[in-house]
Amino acid sequence: MADIATASGGVESLLCRTFGCDGAVAHKIIAAARARDFDEEAVIVHRGDHIADAFFMVMGQARGVVYSREGALVVAQEYRPGDLFGALGGDGPAEQEADIVAVRKVSSLIIEAAALATIAQRHGEIGLALSRMLMTRLREATVRLYERTALSAQGRVYAELRRLADGDTLSIRPPPIVTDLAVRVGTTRETASRAINALERRGIIERSDGSWTILAPRRLEEAIY
Amino acid sequence: MADIATASGGVESLLCRTFGCDGAVAHKIIAAARARDFDEEAVIVHRGDHIADAFFMVMGQARGVVYSREGALVVAQEYRPGDLFGALGGDGPAEQEADIVAVRKVSSLIIEAAALATIAQRHGEIGLALSRMLMTRLREATVRLYERTALSAQGRVYAELRRLADGDTLSIRPPPIVTDLAVRVGTTRETASRAINALERRGIIERSDGSWTILAPRRLEEAIY
Repeated sequence: MADIATASGGVESLLCRTFGCDGAVAHKIIAAARARDFDEEAVIVHRGDHIADAFFMVMGQARGVVYSREGALVVAQEYRPGDLFGALGGDGPAEQEADIVAVRKVSSLIIEAAALATIAQRHGEIGLALSRMLMTRLREATVRLYERTALSAQGRVYAELRRLADGDTLSIRPPPIVTDLAVRVGTTRETASRAINALERRGIIERSDGSWTILAPRRLEEAIY
Repeated sequence: MADIATASGGVESLLCRTFGCDGAVAHKIIAAARARDFDEEAVIVHRGDHIADAFFMVMGQARGVVYSREGALVVAQEYRPGDLFGALGGDGPAEQEADIVAVRKVSSLIIEAAALATIAQRHGEIGLALSRMLMTRLREATVRLYERTALSAQGRVYAELRRLADGDTLSIRPPPIVTDLAVRVGTTRETASRAINALERRGIIERSDGSWTILAPRRLEEAIY
């Protein structure tokens, strides 16, 4: 918690950037919230829990995960600084649909959903920013559902590489961790690794220690099926 | 369009209920929007389109659909009166992730995302209501992704029946259309039909012309895997 206290200037500016609000509104949020850290691998929220708090990510990385029929981990959502999960007010505590797990040590601000709603009611930019964040997440979730339905495991790996690559340089820096990438698209490390090796062999991507580069974006596109 | 004009009192009260706003705010939205109807089976938005408008459902029913590898239709989202889809402002037009198709004749209000954002900025209740709607949809999408990953086709049919049943009476009235139910959970009509027949044979549900009733909710729960 000391982390957040000493870095509260950082928290304030993160809140301002996230919600497009001024420092006074950010301070209202900080005043209504409590800081809490979670160790790496800690379960922040359990699937099935009924919670009445919103969690605002200040530092670290977390994941919403579900498990496949074979017991494999599937990532439903990724949360980074500036992201929000948990409850958003409305009709009482909301049942959580996935475990949320700290991938790296997480610092968060926890705020009662009702208190956040009161602030949002007063300051239109908050609800608007929340809506945009949630709309983006909903699009991502739909794209993942689509890919899970329409693409082979190999195709999903390639779609993920295309998403990760910088739009201008077509490079991924630092290179993705294959195990991570596999979990995100719901396949095994072996399948992901084989799919990536095939791309390299065909000269579609080039791998170095510092980055991967897509050399033939159109051929990558054609391999997404 | 005449439909909406003559029913504008109805539209106003629908907007008030949806956004928890007063009539004056609802009128601002109506004044900034244009009414548009879509025939049954019309494609309202195409996957891949970049659109800058938000669509507010006034009457009818629409679906966000994607296609599986085998070409089967999969429903990603359902939209009914009071629901919203399309763009929500932010950084220019948003690429649509699914086709949105009218299941029944749709009456909608179309409003530029930027205009809606301006109203939401002014009136905190709008953004807050939008956030809650989107959070609910995001939860549903995650649950569907989870079910698609963790449950058999039969289990998904049973989970859908549980969702459709009234919490108190445990009945589904009117009875679901099996083809519809199958599409929603991403399976064939035949599989859904077989799964439902098995429930009836085992005395877990009872079907009549006017409604279906879950007689043994705990045994239904146990069959969801």
